[in-house]
Amino acid sequence: MLIDGTHYRSIWLAEDGQTVQIIDQRKLPFAVEIETIRGWKEMVIAIRDMHLRGAPLIGAAAGYGVYLACLELAAGSHDGFDVGLEGAMAELDAARPTAVNLRWALERQRAALRGADSREEKVVVAREQADAIAEEDVAVCAELGRHGADLLSGIAARNPGRTINVLTHCNAGWLATVDHGTVTAVIYEASRRGLPLHVWVDETRPRNQGALTSWELTHNGVANTVVCDNAGGHLMQHGKVDLVLVGTDRTARNGDVANKIGTYLKALSAMDNEVPFYVALPSSTFDPSMERGVGAIPIEERNADEVLEVRGYDGERESRVRLYADGTAAANYAFDVTPARLVTGYVTERGVFDAHHLAEGLRGANRG
Amino acid sequence: MLIDGTHYRSIWLAEDGQTVQIIDQRKLPFAVEIETIRGWKEMVIAIRDMHLRGAPLIGAAAGYGVYLACLELAAGSHDGFDVGLEGAMAELDAARPTAVNLRWALERQRAALRGADSREEKVVVAREQADAIAEEDVAVCAELGRHGADLLSGIAARNPGRTINVLTHCNAGWLATVDHGTVTAVIYEASRRGLPLHVWVDETRPRNQGALTSWELTHNGVANTVVCDNAGGHLMQHGKVDLVLVGTDRTARNGDVANKIGTYLKALSAMDNEVPFYVALPSSTFDPSMERGVGAIPIEERNADEVLEVRGYDGERESRVRLYADGTAAANYAFDVTPARLVTGYVTERGVFDAHHLAEGLRGANRG
Repeated sequence: MLIDGTHYRSIWLAEDGQTVQIIDQRKLPFAVEIETIRGWKEMVIAIRDMHLRGAPLIGAAAGYGVYLACLELAAGSHDGFDVGLEGAMAELDAARPTAVNLRWALERQRAALRGADSREEKVVVAREQADAIAEEDVAVCAELGRHGADLLSGIAARNPGRTINVLTHCNAGWLATVDHGTVTAVIYEASRRGLPLHVWVDETRPRNQGALTSWELTHNGVANTVVCDNAGGHLMQHGKVDLVLVGTDRTARNGDVANKIGTYLKALSAMDNEVPFYVALPSSTFDPSMERGVGAIPIEERNADEVLEVRGYDGERESRVRLYADGTAAANYAFDVTPARLVTGYVTERGVFDAHHLAEGLRGANRG
Repeated sequence: MLIDGTHYRSIWLAEDGQTVQIIDQRKLPFAVEIETIRGWKEMVIAIRDMHLRGAPLIGAAAGYGVYLACLELAAGSHDGFDVGLEGAMAELDAARPTAVNLRWALERQRAALRGADSREEKVVVAREQADAIAEEDVAVCAELGRHGADLLSGIAARNPGRTINVLTHCNAGWLATVDHGTVTAVIYEASRRGLPLHVWVDETRPRNQGALTSWELTHNGVANTVVCDNAGGHLMQHGKVDLVLVGTDRTARNGDVANKIGTYLKALSAMDNEVPFYVALPSSTFDPSMERGVGAIPIEERNADEVLEVRGYDGERESRVRLYADGTAAANYAFDVTPARLVTGYVTERGVFDAHHLAEGLRGANRG
């Protein structure tokens, strides 16, 4: 997608073929900095310290991390390639302990590398796999976007001449994938079709991922307005939202949706005001092994400092400020689970399904 | 209530009888500063620039502002007392244009002063009225607190030995009144009765009034934990909330409740999870002239900067930081309206009523 009119992916192999480049997301939305990752150890740091984030993007980063490891090991002494590679993969694996896509990408590289004999061949195979992981993610997001845009086209057709208002929570944007995003793939495709669109962007406390969503929508020409997470109920009560569209970190077999904390409150409000509530779900986040989500999907509790402090820009530089008196206790639940009964439908790369047809619709697609 | 073990009201006549003292709420929760108001013009500034806030407290401040004006005018030349007083009252009136309690306090002073002949008598009457306004607010809050604490005592009796978890939104605390508060009057009274209590404090974006609520609860020995506004649904879904208790800025005859933005989302979640949802409502905030609230009570839209920037403490001083890229659009709806169908009951100084009995229960009590 576009930054200041130039197309970028969130990760790509540099022209030299020897290094990987990423957008350092820690600097956004205040600065755009391209970081060059010069070896697998730098990739571990980039994943661990959240220079990049988002499940699909972390998977792609892990894929390229294995390629960088193969490159370095092939250039080294003739002994120890396999041992060295396993060590690198173990460190990549540990960089974000709960990231499902990271594990999946490493397994895929491991399986592919088993078929390669020489070190030179392994370098070639690892690069092919890393590229394939990234390209497949781009293709899945684009296809998901087309199915979702059909929904918005339908709403637009029923409301000729009126702006369609979409509300979203968190960042299910191209910054969380290799390109397009999931929620934003739908929005960008609808925008390409010329639909009159406006997006309400929940700021998404405590980490304010809404700042990323607003930033990328603006750079791609989509009208958007940031609101506090508290505002969605009022907006829906007053007919200012046509459709809610959110991402998901993990969706259970019955359609219960784990997503960023606060999603459930928006789903309740959508139901109360008869606003359609959709989930953008690449099949990689569907977990058919989990029968249901509410009370079953474990909810990560993160550091209270994410609530008590906030990162911003003071006019000269990035600055952290404390919002509460010293000694204030805070709890920081990162996700919640929205029951399937509140979800109108699931937008996937295979089409749009309701909860009763989701598992069937995605049969065989889940790469996990 | 207590600050560091010492009892304070939020406003009081100084020992000299010639000046008024307040807690400068702009410095909280990072510093406690007592401000001495030395004349009615300083009171206008204190109200206008939000050195103090909260509808009942603004009413009390206006009452004392009139007393300070009488004092100053009585000490001046013999001509122009009445004209000067009307001028002062007009400026006090304009300090916060939408504050109902401010207007009410000025009218009350005006009516009382009509019965006084000499300037000396007017000074005495204005002081008596100002004290009476403050004392009545304290009494209303205390009585409301007792009725609400009976509710919590009932929950405690049904759950022996278990901590009772209350969730609240915004600051309906003693800092918004002269003493006790409304929501917090209930909590402080329950705490005095020895009930095992814990309060979930919504941070309440965009102005983070949760920082005030947490600060005052901590100073008064009530266990509390700050959470993002997004967290309440998850907490209720997991049985971590026994009762939601919020304040109100204005409640319509049918029981629809205007309160800080985000209240409606918590009411929806309470309904979905069978958690009782109560509103602490001093009769002064009940508006029997308004038949219903949803779609009828006007919702103030405030400056977008309240969303885009945040005030905090950077370790050395207060600091404002920007959270979003330059040029980001934001909307800032200050209140929302919770439909009466989601409200279990209204805790007033006359007892606890459901929506069907609220107007009858408060007949004749409304001072507005």
